[in-house]
Amino acid sequence: MSYGELVERVKKISNVGHAAGVLRWDQEVMMPEGGTPARSKQLSTLSSVRHDLLTDDRTGELLNAAEPENDEERAVVREVRREYDRATRVPNELVEEISEATSEAHPVWASAKENDDFDEFAPTLEHLVELRREYADYVNPDVPRYEALFEEFEPYLGLDTAERVLSTLRDELMPLVDDVVASDVSPEPLPSVDEDAQEEVVRDALDVLGYDKEHGRLDVAPHPFSTGTQFDARVTTRYSDDPLDALTSTVHEFGHATYTLGLPRDEYGTPLGEARDLTVHESQSRFWENHVARTRAFWDFFAPRFNEATDEDVTPRRAYEAVNTVEERNPIRVEADELTYHSHILLRFEVERALIEGEIEVDEVPAVWNEKHEEYLGFRPESDAQGALQDIHWSHGSFGYFPTYSLGSALAAQVDAAVRDEIDVDEAVREGGFDGIRRWLRDEIHTHGKRYETDELVRRATGDDLSAEPFLKYAHKKYGEVYSV
Amino acid sequence: MSYGELVERVKKISNVGHAAGVLRWDQEVMMPEGGTPARSKQLSTLSSVRHDLLTDDRTGELLNAAEPENDEERAVVREVRREYDRATRVPNELVEEISEATSEAHPVWASAKENDDFDEFAPTLEHLVELRREYADYVNPDVPRYEALFEEFEPYLGLDTAERVLSTLRDELMPLVDDVVASDVSPEPLPSVDEDAQEEVVRDALDVLGYDKEHGRLDVAPHPFSTGTQFDARVTTRYSDDPLDALTSTVHEFGHATYTLGLPRDEYGTPLGEARDLTVHESQSRFWENHVARTRAFWDFFAPRFNEATDEDVTPRRAYEAVNTVEERNPIRVEADELTYHSHILLRFEVERALIEGEIEVDEVPAVWNEKHEEYLGFRPESDAQGALQDIHWSHGSFGYFPTYSLGSALAAQVDAAVRDEIDVDEAVREGGFDGIRRWLRDEIHTHGKRYETDELVRRATGDDLSAEPFLKYAHKKYGEVYSV
Repeated sequence: MSYGELVERVKKISNVGHAAGVLRWDQEVMMPEGGTPARSKQLSTLSSVRHDLLTDDRTGELLNAAEPENDEERAVVREVRREYDRATRVPNELVEEISEATSEAHPVWASAKENDDFDEFAPTLEHLVELRREYADYVNPDVPRYEALFEEFEPYLGLDTAERVLSTLRDELMPLVDDVVASDVSPEPLPSVDEDAQEEVVRDALDVLGYDKEHGRLDVAPHPFSTGTQFDARVTTRYSDDPLDALTSTVHEFGHATYTLGLPRDEYGTPLGEARDLTVHESQSRFWENHVARTRAFWDFFAPRFNEATDEDVTPRRAYEAVNTVEERNPIRVEADELTYHSHILLRFEVERALIEGEIEVDEVPAVWNEKHEEYLGFRPESDAQGALQDIHWSHGSFGYFPTYSLGSALAAQVDAAVRDEIDVDEAVREGGFDGIRRWLRDEIHTHGKRYETDELVRRATGDDLSAEPFLKYAHKKYGEVYSV
Repeated sequence: MSYGELVERVKKISNVGHAAGVLRWDQEVMMPEGGTPARSKQLSTLSSVRHDLLTDDRTGELLNAAEPENDEERAVVREVRREYDRATRVPNELVEEISEATSEAHPVWASAKENDDFDEFAPTLEHLVELRREYADYVNPDVPRYEALFEEFEPYLGLDTAERVLSTLRDELMPLVDDVVASDVSPEPLPSVDEDAQEEVVRDALDVLGYDKEHGRLDVAPHPFSTGTQFDARVTTRYSDDPLDALTSTVHEFGHATYTLGLPRDEYGTPLGEARDLTVHESQSRFWENHVARTRAFWDFFAPRFNEATDEDVTPRRAYEAVNTVEERNPIRVEADELTYHSHILLRFEVERALIEGEIEVDEVPAVWNEKHEEYLGFRPESDAQGALQDIHWSHGSFGYFPTYSLGSALAAQVDAAVRDEIDVDEAVREGGFDGIRRWLRDEIHTHGKRYETDELVRRATGDDLSAEPFLKYAHKKYGEVYSV
């Protein structure tokens, strides 16, 4: 009985969170600009309502009294217990202080970036770092502060895994990038096409990949994202000069949405019906973006469709090369190719860890950033706007989030290898047959929700612990082929 | 101090309600169909969270301890007290039972209407009526049940006002309708135009009337509505064969949104920043729809713009006649003209009151409906789908809502007369000058939120108690002119 009551309470907490998700989607995609003051208050209310429900003594009583009767029920109790423990360890005053500080931080960061003035953001960043250190000490005093924060985004992989994967990527990818840069090959970008044609291309891509429009929709947003539930998982995109930007970004969000839609519907609102954190989520988006939409097989299939929609005459080979272009000197993380992307993450990981652990001070951040930028990317950004002020994450008070991007990318390659053990992916993709791939991902990953801890989920799906090796193998093979290195 | 705490709590309650409003807008306008199961659960969670916050003992303690120091603060306490008292008088079990019964009722009603089968809906309606009777006994045992339910929608006007206004309208309007029907004049409908042109017309109308796009947006919905806050008040419309349908319906929703946008921003989340219930809200939509967009002056101004957008050549006189057409035999309330509309309301009012008071049984409803339909409208509807199953309200468990439509229409005319005492409305409208009108409405009505009880607000704005006289005067003048009667 009390297990049932616990689940009812958990569903209530989850529904408040999903309601907030709808409000955030609306804010990014539909809300008129003037709506901000009211929307901020609505979101902060939902956040505090959710926190109150979670940390209420009643949740603790139900957790203590719950008598789970099987593995699924034990997984539910494990996940709720973890979240309850972390939430109750932090005093309410600190939670509120962080919430206020982050909502005030965002416009300060945006203005500092606009003005290319790190000093404008520095006191705010200082305050956020102090609050997050304090938070880390409460939430898990047994580990270094940065690790306590990393666990917030990635509970079951361990910071040591992140370190291992990132340092392997650094050591092995930088020589490959050097070879690529030294190569004579220089892919030609695709011609730019108008927005209507781009929209036709991305809608066609969503159709052929199997996006379920009865449970989703596509809109435009300044920063593409995906959000929702297994009943309603939406994607957004944006259009730029290069039609491949919108396409790869839409396929990326399709990967996120497909994970969400693959969660079991009858477990909506319980941890068994929620996605397994950031690394696994990112692995799903990267799988579709990199291991499907950046393959030669995909372009053998899709180039004619692209030409049909855009009235162009692009060969599969040309599109394949263009979509796998390694840019030598792009300082912007979100525009980076698959290889240099990890250098962007590595430098952020090292800077934010040093900052949280007190090894560097806020005013040293730009210098350290630029130094590492030179070390890992071979050049210095022209400005702090393109450097330490580039990303929104710190203004959200998020430290420890960045490594999950690289972990997700590595996991995508590991998943890809596992899928290829069972399915001839290239042949299927070349014929536009994506159902088998979607089914594999759903059965091996999506359908489990949070049933398994992340490391176990990875082992079950791929047969191995998470490592950088499959990504390196994949990268050497593909970029060796594209750049003849 | 405890007044301040009360206000904080009230804002929290209000924000949960507004968050639910965003979810409902999304559900009607944006949500993919498959999202329904999750959305229902999110909405029911927010509803129960709101109810729990409102009825918590803490709210009562804060109310008892509050020491309001001026009229505004006293108004806040009065409004919160009223809502708290009504909510706490009803047992939680009954609230939940009603919530479940109404969410189950909607599809049953929709199917019964589709199948034109009243018996299919009858047991559900029976159950809803019983629950609402029980509810009425708790919420205000001192008055007849129907009155207790009416007060839910219209707290400060009194059911006797509704009776007086409705019976006057019945007695005075039916002879006018008879004259109109007997007249030789029969206005010609405007030519139908395609949806794009209709959209251009309604967007232009919103522009010229002064809809603030920084704080609103226009979308399409199957049943047009308006929702939001003083920071973000949105309207919806739909397009049919007759371009005047979309136009008048959009202007109607513009009136609602303009009220919402005129609420004081610094009182967002308190009763001083919330609209004064249904009658006043409806008066604002009807004011713009009937007393602006159905005037000859408006068409002198707008016909050339209409022609420009639609490539038609409609004279102001023709448009003016078309938009004021009285249809002799239309059984559909939402399509009714200004005159016969009240007959539709009158029959619903009498049927639902008799039902709640136990004077008729559910299985008698179709017969009584059709009888009154003949009496007030001069003919019987061809089916229950066009009769007793026509409206959604009862399936929502809403009884006592209908009279506020007629009260709002009457109040719109009374407001119009008051505006005209100070502004030459026809001259302003003929020149496309709507600012002065909007300002009058904002200063005399919108800006007060719930500060005054409704009857006092009406007296302050119009100098008189609510009555049917201004509407009758207006109707006789206009329809006398259009139909030469």
